[in-house]
Amino acid sequence: MAPKIQPQTTIDTIADICNHIQISQSSRHDKVPAIVNRLLNSWSTKECYEHISPVSIPSHDKIIEIVQQARRILFPGYFTRTRLHAANLEYYIGKETTDLYEKVGEQIVIAIRHDCRRNNLPCTRCEERSQELTLAFIESLPDVTATLATDIRAAIEGDPATDSPDEVIFSYPGLLAISIFRLAHELFRLKVPIVPRIMTEYAHSLTGIDIHPGATIGEGFFIDHGTGVVIGETTVIGNNVRLYQGVTLGALSLPRDAGTKLRHQKRHPTIEDDVIIYANTTILGGDTVIGRGSVIGGNIWLTESVEAGTRVMLKRPELIYANGRAR
Amino acid sequence: MAPKIQPQTTIDTIADICNHIQISQSSRHDKVPAIVNRLLNSWSTKECYEHISPVSIPSHDKIIEIVQQARRILFPGYFTRTRLHAANLEYYIGKETTDLYEKVGEQIVIAIRHDCRRNNLPCTRCEERSQELTLAFIESLPDVTATLATDIRAAIEGDPATDSPDEVIFSYPGLLAISIFRLAHELFRLKVPIVPRIMTEYAHSLTGIDIHPGATIGEGFFIDHGTGVVIGETTVIGNNVRLYQGVTLGALSLPRDAGTKLRHQKRHPTIEDDVIIYANTTILGGDTVIGRGSVIGGNIWLTESVEAGTRVMLKRPELIYANGRAR
Amino acid sequence: MAPKIQPQTTIDTIADICNHIQISQSSRHDKVPAIVNRLLNSWSTKECYEHISPVSIPSHDKIIEIVQQARRILFPGYFTRTRLHAANLEYYIGKETTDLYEKVGEQIVIAIRHDCRRNNLPCTRCEERSQELTLAFIESLPDVTATLATDIRAAIEGDPATDSPDEVIFSYPGLLAISIFRLAHELFRLKVPIVPRIMTEYAHSLTGIDIHPGATIGEGFFIDHGTGVVIGETTVIGNNVRLYQGVTLGALSLPRDAGTKLRHQKRHPTIEDDVIIYANTTILGGDTVIGRGSVIGGNIWLTESVEAGTRVMLKRPELIYANGRAR
Repeated sequence: MAPKIQPQTTIDTIADICNHIQISQSSRHDKVPAIVNRLLNSWSTKECYEHISPVSIPSHDKIIEIVQQARRILFPGYFTRTRLHAANLEYYIGKETTDLYEKVGEQIVIAIRHDCRRNNLPCTRCEERSQELTLAFIESLPDVTATLATDIRAAIEGDPATDSPDEVIFSYPGLLAISIFRLAHELFRLKVPIVPRIMTEYAHSLTGIDIHPGATIGEGFFIDHGTGVVIGETTVIGNNVRLYQGVTLGALSLPRDAGTKLRHQKRHPTIEDDVIIYANTTILGGDTVIGRGSVIGGNIWLTESVEAGTRVMLKRPELIYANGRAR
Repeated sequence: MAPKIQPQTTIDTIADICNHIQISQSSRHDKVPAIVNRLLNSWSTKECYEHISPVSIPSHDKIIEIVQQARRILFPGYFTRTRLHAANLEYYIGKETTDLYEKVGEQIVIAIRHDCRRNNLPCTRCEERSQELTLAFIESLPDVTATLATDIRAAIEGDPATDSPDEVIFSYPGLLAISIFRLAHELFRLKVPIVPRIMTEYAHSLTGIDIHPGATIGEGFFIDHGTGVVIGETTVIGNNVRLYQGVTLGALSLPRDAGTKLRHQKRHPTIEDDVIIYANTTILGGDTVIGRGSVIGGNIWLTESVEAGTRVMLKRPELIYANGRAR
Repeated sequence: MAPKIQPQTTIDTIADICNHIQISQSSRHDKVPAIVNRLLNSWSTKECYEHISPVSIPSHDKIIEIVQQARRILFPGYFTRTRLHAANLEYYIGKETTDLYEKVGEQIVIAIRHDCRRNNLPCTRCEERSQELTLAFIESLPDVTATLATDIRAAIEGDPATDSPDEVIFSYPGLLAISIFRLAHELFRLKVPIVPRIMTEYAHSLTGIDIHPGATIGEGFFIDHGTGVVIGETTVIGNNVRLYQGVTLGALSLPRDAGTKLRHQKRHPTIEDDVIIYANTTILGGDTVIGRGSVIGGNIWLTESVEAGTRVMLKRPELIYANGRAR
């Protein structure tokens, strides 16, 4: 494929070579249209998932903006360069909240229209319904704030490495994930399609903590470290529960075609008030209930219920010790 | 809540409907002030964590800039578009270092003032102390560089998938997390509040590796893959230690009010020189010492000390095999 | 180190103090050149890893741009604000593809030149070879699209929490990681240095899923949740395989100097068609083969082969239950 070069090169032939190379490069570029056609054909000929339609789709970037703006409202003064004080706080919150209202409204109407179209429904009340849902979401913010205050307190009580709410708000991935979850959950409750999941997957990407927006989670929730935590869609968690990294609250083993069979059933466990679950423990199943005040040790695999006030530990596993300088 | 529409619509009534909708939308917007008031009240009436005061607070974005600029100094030529060569290297490093000096100084003074205020202390020497700490931090950079060179070498020796220091510097999450940890640790040693933790949580977010800035870690440290690694505040790690993904060096189970009781005690293990710890192993407790040259297998839960040169493996767990085409 | 202040301050002496502080600050700044010199010396005196040469190096930011542009081509309409329809789709894809061609070509030639130099080889055909590789990569895009369609279908079939391809494309970290892997793998097959690994580590950073670009992975691959998944360089995975979070397909324990000894050997397992592997299971070793249609339970540590159609479960581990209100 390389241009053949005569050994007896002269200045002229060098220019020739350069031309040749230029030509061979441009002949490569000439192949782009054929590739584009193969791409276009691949979409038109088989079941495919491109999104090519006159209906707009929700925007990742805008939804991330919404999350960031909501955090500026939930934690005023932490994530802004604006200096806040008693005199300007009301204006600041007022402005941020009206802005947020607009942005959320835009994405909700897009998501609802898109969903109507996907299900071949007429979009008769999409615009108005979106307005109602947006208002309901914005109205939930003061309650979200109040709940997050209990989550921050739980972090300080649970972690010997800090005594500062500022540190928790600034840098704890658990609080970040829970904040985004609590916002997404409000939208999920309102049955807004797609947007809540984009929000929680944004949190997942930032923190390694994967909370489905459908989960039900009480006050004073604390996740320490958090990487690898998975909380499934139909999980129910009470008040003052504490989880460590790598805890899965999941579904029992699923058949191959699980997707179509088990939608909308309770598949994930119930964790009652005041439970602590240590690192890398897995609790599975929709009928599994961890009773109030129980403490579940680390590295445990649990698929059945536990009475209130139980302490569960793994029997000390047998280890093999070999001496002599290890290789 | 939907506007009632008379079935016998004329062009006039359609205009009416539009007006009606407009009004109902704007009446929705009218609810924003009430929501803002509820938000403001929620902060003023209960124990809350807003940061509304004339004192500036450290800036996430600026601290991330600091980390990125420091990496450009620690690995000159890797993370910049400036072409470096013998003639401009000194100017480049000089400029980056003075810039970094300014930026670090700014955030340190903000962090210290903020901490004074939080503890109701007078801020008599904040500015000057910040200058001293900034200088001490900048002075530590050459040592950090030297230590990171040992970490890079450890990665090449430990990973069969690469023989290229460039690949390690460009793309290994372990080296990224260790680099940021080593910078944050210098600030932690200098008792700079908040900033070190924001740095290491930035690394955690990028890599899934959660190293508390307070940990003490020797030369030639290598973390492979790394997602889910947790290294607690009072951990001590010797030279030439290698960890794999999901390893926790943590505290033993904590009582519910652990936060207030155990602050500043040694709660995390000591890992001596030349130890290897395989994937998903958990080692807990402030008195636990893993002796020099030991090799700890994967998936192990260890809460007691191990002599030097020991090889620890999990006894082969009993598995149940069922045949026949699995569902 | 603090300037000594006489108690009997007058207005004059306050100005003096200010001057003093200014001087002491600037004298601190005066220490920067010495620090810069120490940095420069540290690089010139020992084995070091700075990249200071007239040869350009690949750019992280540009490679991330490439990944994002490729996703806009693979999933047209999802990650762009441009509204696509039958009339403009061809132009849109055409433009994006030619742009991508240029960008990929630039980074490939830089990577190849850099690699030549690192190995002290002459760079006689670098430019032309890069053109060939770039074309081969662009030509692979329609096949990548077709394979990703099977991956999306696998996600919908495997996850009860969704029935929407849009949700999968927008927000599933598994699909994101697999998309980037499939792109990177094409470059890896073409032996493009450094670039593929930067791509997959970008995916790792976003998702916690670490797939080496060298792995061989069939159609219909689904990773649910995904945080902590590690798939090693020489892993071979068949069609319609499903993995959950925390699954490692790795190498057996490595000697301390593994890096130099085991490069390029098959060190990671083979997973045949239609296998499901549940959360946090670890399968190790280059000779380990998981036979077609097997189901491997969660939390298992497996270092030997399993026949086709086997179901492997962990024997129920012994747990210790203690009653009474847990502390």
